[in-house]
Amino acid sequence: MAKDGNGQAAAMRKLRRLVKGIRVAMMTTTHGDGTLHSRPMATCEALDEDGALWFFTSCETEKVREINADHHVNVAYSDPNDDRYVSIAGMARIVRDREKMQKLWSPTLRLWFPRGLDEPDIALLRVEVERAEYWDPSAGLFSAIVSR
Amino acid sequence: MAKDGNGQAAAMRKLRRLVKGIRVAMMTTTHGDGTLHSRPMATCEALDEDGALWFFTSCETEKVREINADHHVNVAYSDPNDDRYVSIAGMARIVRDREKMQKLWSPTLRLWFPRGLDEPDIALLRVEVERAEYWDPSAGLFSAIVSR
Ligand SMILES: Cc1cc2nc3c(=O)[nH]c(=O)nc-3n(C[C@H](O)[C@H](O)[C@H](O)COP(=O)(O)O)c2cc1C
Repeated sequence: MAKDGNGQAAAMRKLRRLVKGIRVAMMTTTHGDGTLHSRPMATCEALDEDGALWFFTSCETEKVREINADHHVNVAYSDPNDDRYVSIAGMARIVRDREKMQKLWSPTLRLWFPRGLDEPDIALLRVEVERAEYWDPSAGLFSAIVSR
Repeated sequence: MAKDGNGQAAAMRKLRRLVKGIRVAMMTTTHGDGTLHSRPMATCEALDEDGALWFFTSCETEKVREINADHHVNVAYSDPNDDRYVSIAGMARIVRDREKMQKLWSPTLRLWFPRGLDEPDIALLRVEVERAEYWDPSAGLFSAIVSR
């Protein structure tokens, strides 16, 4: 896909649609020994106007320790039934913004945060997208790239 | 899950079943600048008797350059419709074994390798599993871990 302004905007819209249709991503972080860890994460906001992804997290977790040591993450959305795959490389940061948390909270998150926004160490994880690619049969076999 | 011999063997069997049911994984590698890249890859053999995963690849690709510089990969299988997620951390290596290639080849791979095993730079990618976790609603919300 072209990297001019129009191609870029169209790719971003397409990316937003793909991500919305999948919701649960595998987020990969780097452990101190070089091992790459991934785990499923429910997307709360996909590609806001600044091109960021938002997730809820608990601060006392391996992923937050890994992210604090190395901000690089990959967020992969895949739906093998539909043959759609999205890879987003970005930089993750912990954000403790009560107002934003209230805006993004949804009851299904109680599975992981039974006490909701009263969990003592609940926070948001913001991923700033740096490079994105998708594979989508309707767009042919090749990947389209968004880079910032 | 217990890390004793029996628990480990049962976890490995379960893992093999999960991976077989999903087939296309997102494989994450580390770029020289620290960025994490992922792309869909069709699994050709899942967890052989040595606990390895096998894929076909072309040698003239970004992923092979990244793997030659840093062998750590994460292979993530996810099926959002079924709410199943598997994360496998391992070490990847290029293997040029004609006999093994003939054994693992399947016609659906022609999509990426139109000339089949006659592609000049076709090779196998072997991922030695080091740590695996899965999230499966039938097993509760928690993950089971296989570690070697
Ligand atoms: C469903 C699906 C399965 C794929 N399977 C493979 C595969 O088994 N081997 C492979 O080299 N590329 C496969 N590809 C293409 C890769 O995703 C990728 O575009 C290509 O290998 C180049 O990646 P790289 O530039 O990151 O090295 C597959 C693509 C899709 C959509």
